[in-house]
This record gives sequence, C-alpha cells and structure tokens, in this order.
Amino acid sequence: MPLRSYDQNCSIARTLQVVGERWTLLVLREVFTGQRRFEEIQRNLGVATNILSDRLQTLVDEGVLERRPLPERADRFEYRPTEKGLDLNPVLLELMRWGDRWDAPAAGPPVLVQHRDCGHDTHAVQTCAHCGEPLSARNVRVRPGPGARAAAA
Amino acid sequence: MPLRSYDQNCSIARTLQVVGERWTLLVLREVFTGQRRFEEIQRNLGVATNILSDRLQTLVDEGVLERRPLPERADRFEYRPTEKGLDLNPVLLELMRWGDRWDAPAAGPPVLVQHRDCGHDTHAVQTCAHCGEPLSARNVRVRPGPGARAAAA
Repeated sequence: MPLRSYDQNCSIARTLQVVGERWTLLVLREVFTGQRRFEEIQRNLGVATNILSDRLQTLVDEGVLERRPLPERADRFEYRPTEKGLDLNPVLLELMRWGDRWDAPAAGPPVLVQHRDCGHDTHAVQTCAHCGEPLSARNVRVRPGPGARAAAA
Repeated sequence: MPLRSYDQNCSIARTLQVVGERWTLLVLREVFTGQRRFEEIQRNLGVATNILSDRLQTLVDEGVLERRPLPERADRFEYRPTEKGLDLNPVLLELMRWGDRWDAPAAGPPVLVQHRDCGHDTHAVQTCAHCGEPLSARNVRVRPGPGARAAAA
C-alpha cells in the first residue's frame, strides 16, 4: 500500500491508490498509444528502470495491464491494457483536455484526438448518464452513498 | 518544477505537473465539496500540515485555487476554485467513476453524484464534442497536433 494515507472510503482515493503514483498515468499513456514493451516505454519517458518496473508490476497486480510473452520471443514481454485498464482512458482524456485548454503551446495542442466513428477531431464532453446533458462542477452535487457506512466499520 | 521529468510536450504531462503530486487531487476533492479552510482540509485528509501548505500554495500559484480572507476574520483564509480549477471537476468525476466501477465496497459507491439539472443520480459519460456519441478507448485515436513541433525546439 504505497499510498496508505489515501486509504479512505472514497472512490477517488481508491483510484489514486492504483494510478496516483508518479509516472503511472504516463506509463498508461504510452501503453494506450501503442508502446507496449518495457524498452519503448522506458526510452520515451526517460524514467528510471526500477521505477518503471515497479509501476508496471503494480498495474499488472491490479489487473489494469496484462503481461504477455511476445509471439516471436517468449522470453520477452509486452504490456496490454485489460478492460479495467481501457476504462481509465476517460481519465487520460480529461487530463489532456485540461492541459490543452489551460496550458497548451501557443501553436496549439501537442496531440489531437480523433473520434473514429465520426471522423472529426474532438475532445471529451462529460454528460449525464441519465439525461445526456453536459455535467459541470456547477450542476452536480455529491452525497453519501450506500457504501458510505463502511467508513465507520 | 517538482515533476521536472514530466516536462514533456504533452498535455497529460503538463496537467500532472499541476495536479500530479500526491494529495493534490484529494485536496481539490475537499475544496470542491465545500471544505475550504486549511484546518478542515487537514483534518479530513490527515495530511501533514507542511505538505498541505505546499499543495495549496502550488494550486494558488497555478491559478487553480484562490486564497481569500474570511469575511469575519481577515487574518484567516479560505480556498475557492477558480474557473481553471472548476474545470478539473471532470478529472475527479472520472477517477470516482472508475473507482466506483472497479473497486467499490460491496454495499455500493461511497458517494453518489446527482445531476442537479435533471435531478437523477448519475455518473459521467464521455462524449464526442463534435457528434455527441460516446467516446471510448476503442473509438479514439491520437496523432501529433499543431503544437507538436515545439518538442523539437
């Protein structure tokens, strides 16, 4: 439990236990964009090999990535996102959207996101699962849910 | 630049320079849910005061939070999110949604999100800014954008 102090009854804190360590979200960015071998990820990020090993192991242990032998060399591996891992894509897209909006280079975004189904460049818009209208900080509120009582256990 | 090695030409990395330090996103969670005084945030998180001071100062320096004197005691302060800060709400909602889906207590989510406009409990659905259809890891792709060349500068 590297982030023991995050061990709260909160789904944000629980998620950060898995992906909140330094480098982890950038490791996922690499895997999502097709860099799936240790050496590729290490070279692109410039992260120390022991740290990268640790982050990849955590992601495998948590079921976010799968380690698979390469077809051509069974003693080498690649890392692929699981369904649980792919479901972190919205986190990456929102981090990217915020960076693009508030801190992009003058020339524009470093990376463009294309929605393959409609073919257009896009960014994420968060909508309500019930009515489909946009969500914002101003039109949502939170309250204790059914799992809240676990905090008192 | 505490995360110097994140200093890449990537909007995810840029965002993590602002919010990627341990505790920062939980500090924002507190402020977004109405805990705006140092003592409240510190008590809820159980974070060391020097770390909390550092995180709050970074968020003020980055324009994510504003420090305002309390009306009743001008020598005490509260922290309020700016527009730039409120625009991090989607990141928090996606972290929460993932934790709810993959690691919630058996009883259910610790916290429920209500969309005030329609009145229903909800979670975030990421949609395409162009066509409004859902985005997923499988139907988006990324490519270098206009700001990509800055990396070579």
